[in-house]
Amino acid sequence: MQHGFFNVVSTQWLLEQFTALGRVAGVESCSLTNAHGRVLAQDIVAKENLPPFTRSSMDGYAVNAQDTFGASESNPGYLECVQEIAIDRLPDFTLHPGQCAALVTGAGLPDGADSVIMVEHTQEMGTGTIEIRRSVAPGENTMLEGEDQAVGSTALHEGRRLRPQDVGLLAALGVTDCEVIPRPKTALLSTGDEIVDVAATPRPGQIRDVNTSTLGALIQRAGGEVTSTARVPDDLEAISTALQSGLDVADLVLISGGSSIGARDHTLTALTRLPQCTILAHGVAMSPGKPTIVATVGETMVMGLPGQVTSAQMVMEVLGLPLLKQLGGEDPDLAPFKATVPAVLTRNIASRQGREDYVRARLATGQSGRIEATPVLGKSGLLKTMLQANGYLRIPAHAEGMQKGQTVTVHLF
Amino acid sequence: MQHGFFNVVSTQWLLEQFTALGRVAGVESCSLTNAHGRVLAQDIVAKENLPPFTRSSMDGYAVNAQDTFGASESNPGYLECVQEIAIDRLPDFTLHPGQCAALVTGAGLPDGADSVIMVEHTQEMGTGTIEIRRSVAPGENTMLEGEDQAVGSTALHEGRRLRPQDVGLLAALGVTDCEVIPRPKTALLSTGDEIVDVAATPRPGQIRDVNTSTLGALIQRAGGEVTSTARVPDDLEAISTALQSGLDVADLVLISGGSSIGARDHTLTALTRLPQCTILAHGVAMSPGKPTIVATVGETMVMGLPGQVTSAQMVMEVLGLPLLKQLGGEDPDLAPFKATVPAVLTRNIASRQGREDYVRARLATGQSGRIEATPVLGKSGLLKTMLQANGYLRIPAHAEGMQKGQTVTVHLF
Repeated sequence: MQHGFFNVVSTQWLLEQFTALGRVAGVESCSLTNAHGRVLAQDIVAKENLPPFTRSSMDGYAVNAQDTFGASESNPGYLECVQEIAIDRLPDFTLHPGQCAALVTGAGLPDGADSVIMVEHTQEMGTGTIEIRRSVAPGENTMLEGEDQAVGSTALHEGRRLRPQDVGLLAALGVTDCEVIPRPKTALLSTGDEIVDVAATPRPGQIRDVNTSTLGALIQRAGGEVTSTARVPDDLEAISTALQSGLDVADLVLISGGSSIGARDHTLTALTRLPQCTILAHGVAMSPGKPTIVATVGETMVMGLPGQVTSAQMVMEVLGLPLLKQLGGEDPDLAPFKATVPAVLTRNIASRQGREDYVRARLATGQSGRIEATPVLGKSGLLKTMLQANGYLRIPAHAEGMQKGQTVTVHLF
Repeated sequence: MQHGFFNVVSTQWLLEQFTALGRVAGVESCSLTNAHGRVLAQDIVAKENLPPFTRSSMDGYAVNAQDTFGASESNPGYLECVQEIAIDRLPDFTLHPGQCAALVTGAGLPDGADSVIMVEHTQEMGTGTIEIRRSVAPGENTMLEGEDQAVGSTALHEGRRLRPQDVGLLAALGVTDCEVIPRPKTALLSTGDEIVDVAATPRPGQIRDVNTSTLGALIQRAGGEVTSTARVPDDLEAISTALQSGLDVADLVLISGGSSIGARDHTLTALTRLPQCTILAHGVAMSPGKPTIVATVGETMVMGLPGQVTSAQMVMEVLGLPLLKQLGGEDPDLAPFKATVPAVLTRNIASRQGREDYVRARLATGQSGRIEATPVLGKSGLLKTMLQANGYLRIPAHAEGMQKGQTVTVHLF
């Protein structure tokens, strides 16, 4: 068995390489109902003003602001209410000086009106006369035509992952279908002679396949699609065949296990036999996750992940999800703010210099009301650190560790 | 038009009431592949130990720790390697004093071995003799049988929303199907004479329905299911009929618009005509969102949301999503840590005492490297505050505002 890695890189360097990879090929059409969470493959340009007409944002009276100037509780003004404006059609009359028109929230303003006085600041005098108890400024309590979105302006940009409010904007603009970037197709290979199907009863020495389930869920969370899954023994030919099957159908092939350098680690050999293969990294200066492989085979990405369950999940969190988002076409400048929580460390953590340590942490609100992070340490082959943790913290390569009482940034799972 | 609310409550009070509502009725079976994001309706008890046998967590040699005591670089020990242990079956021999056995990560230990020495700390001497260059402690570099999960212990509790790592634990335990709580069925009613379908070309005075799209996406995000949608005019009988249709099929009926007190606000009347109706709140001391109605009709929940698009979304964020999670059976003690970001306010915000203000905010990393929150102010009828914001901050009812430079907690959308 040989140990050591020929191309150990930092996570930062690797993340920077991803931006050059571009996104998956093609576009697909998506209905508004299914658009939430998808990534736009086109700019959405407003074909009309939004709102399409100047609307009231309050229940009250449409007025010309000048007619209210000087009005107050002690010195009210009086206007003649000439009409009650219907909510669902634009008024077809013009408001003259001294007049007002009743309207509800959302109704359009007549010509001659530039503002709305809230009903709370008025009193009906019973003769079509309305007492005005304060003044309003021009534009007050109105939503101006085009204020939300002007006709011809770009409402949403290509690369935007659509949030609920973005879907609402599409609805407002009458966009019933839009072009989105296809979900990255992912093939999952779980390698290891000892790995059996979840439904199987393992005989002594065997264990059930965990990585297909956890990685599959993480892929869904990052907007990818699990296109194929396979369990593969520790055999070069079997891995080569499964790798080729994955390359044939997927934009990203994830291989868990077999990425280290040892008697049963065939992933690298299977990759380097392929003429179109370029190895971006074999070995990443992170713990857990050192034996990670990242490669391209033509237009397809391949990641070799550690077989250990916790290591595989951590590499997916740190490197796999950003890669999937890049392939999925999400513009990082338009991406949601990353959810992190600052917390006070409850104990010291030691760390070796020269590699980044990713330490799982459990969060709780301490007696002082501050959020406390307790490191959850344990072996990478056990599930429990991931189960007990809410997220992870990163110890930089140059640091020797972190101190109890220090404030750390916890990245939520 | 009558103004004022008869039962204005705080958001905190209302959130506390939700816990008494229980969850939706019934359970359903879910396959492992679809389990991510679902809420367990049962405790999952481990039917076997995990790991099922004591495994090596490193490549190296299984040893009895005692045989390594005192070994060092300068004073190595020597052991006889009696066997190479297969990865996929348990060793059937016993290790005797002075012996070791080669094994890879994940392989089982033979009887007589209690620890593993890493291959990096050994040297093959070519005659079946292994030089040992450090000592190991009992248990070192092993994952003990049952260390992850002991047979008979509860692996995952009812009320847990399953994360990727939880799905992995189910896989490890051989749970191919589990009982989950049904997704809360939600009926969406969008009221207003002026509201037209997204696909329609509005005539002057009409606008397209936004709330069905945004609320639908938010419901999906909270694990609910949109069971029916309807656009309903401002007409008491039409609203009553649509409400009854919603009550017939849903666990939660959301009605946007018509929840204030005014000529076109029929939601409350439609509700109170139902004999089984209990109004929990009409009016919540929050802005935007004051005219919110929360009611029960028998076993079904009803929320009347403001019609204004931003107000409707904010009430969903603050009250609707917690309600959906409660109905969906998620145990708050087992819920993921809520994603908030502390940020420095870039300008003052005024606020009226006596109500909670929910202010949308845009986050950016400032020149100092600190995260800055800029309030995004605007009318509730416009979409743009929601589009520009990454989240919101809450100004408590007793506060008169917040100061520039103050650190605030931003709740991410």
